[in-house]
Amino acid sequence: MDLAFQDQYPEQFSHCFGCGRNNPAGHQIKSYWDGDRTIARFTPGLQYTGGVPEHAYGGLVASLLDCHGAATAFAYARRDSDAHEDIRYVTASLTVDFRRPTPIGVELEITGRLKARDGRKSWIDLALSANGTECATATMLAIRLRSENRGS
Amino acid sequence: MDLAFQDQYPEQFSHCFGCGRNNPAGHQIKSYWDGDRTIARFTPGLQYTGGVPEHAYGGLVASLLDCHGAATAFAYARRDSDAHEDIRYVTASLTVDFRRPTPIGVELEITGRLKARDGRKSWIDLALSANGTECATATMLAIRLRSENRGS
Repeated sequence: MDLAFQDQYPEQFSHCFGCGRNNPAGHQIKSYWDGDRTIARFTPGLQYTGGVPEHAYGGLVASLLDCHGAATAFAYARRDSDAHEDIRYVTASLTVDFRRPTPIGVELEITGRLKARDGRKSWIDLALSANGTECATATMLAIRLRSENRGS
Repeated sequence: MDLAFQDQYPEQFSHCFGCGRNNPAGHQIKSYWDGDRTIARFTPGLQYTGGVPEHAYGGLVASLLDCHGAATAFAYARRDSDAHEDIRYVTASLTVDFRRPTPIGVELEITGRLKARDGRKSWIDLALSANGTECATATMLAIRLRSENRGS
């Protein structure tokens, strides 16, 4: 399997609780290409329940969409750039629409697509499903860090 | 101190990882009145870092705003209703604007206000600050669960 997008992030930006390879306590979400879209799969621990024990809490749903969205922005930029160039996107704005409860104890699938890009800004469309049913959708504006912020 | 809003939620809806009193592994966020607005204070554990260790990850910021927002919707509805009535709001949509990095290792302050209410829908304005500086703002549409969903 190809290296996950997050495993290609610059070393100093890889500490995210959601998806950083350098955060052993975190979710370590991994995102990949899936044809012309991106995908991540994640089975949350049962402690991450929402108000009722059968559902995931909203913060986890937002976290999965957020980390996969930033990774999607990275992937499209990586595809179009010099392989040796450091790239890292951060979230400027995230809108999550919770369409139905997200079940817990099953594998969740998060998909992403680049909607538009303008300079350092990328707009990403995202969806999260469980057992083939869409539970949440999101749109994100991600901003690419300038190279001066990416120094060690 | 008054009982936190989350500690007034119906028993069966108090398992949220973000704010449920029945989730011992969770953040147990507690929200209160602060004059005519609501407030929660939370100091995240150092494992909840973003891409860099000095900042909180986006999912945590979203989680704090989400849980405090639903609690704020609850509080305004509680204020205007029979004290014996079960009330629980869930999030339909949440938009988070990440205005600057949220530092980690300090107490964060999350505030909320009811912007509008129409039947079971409440729109909430939210802000998260650290050391007096606003790091993120959010708007939420929260929906009150119907009484038939609130049975035991």
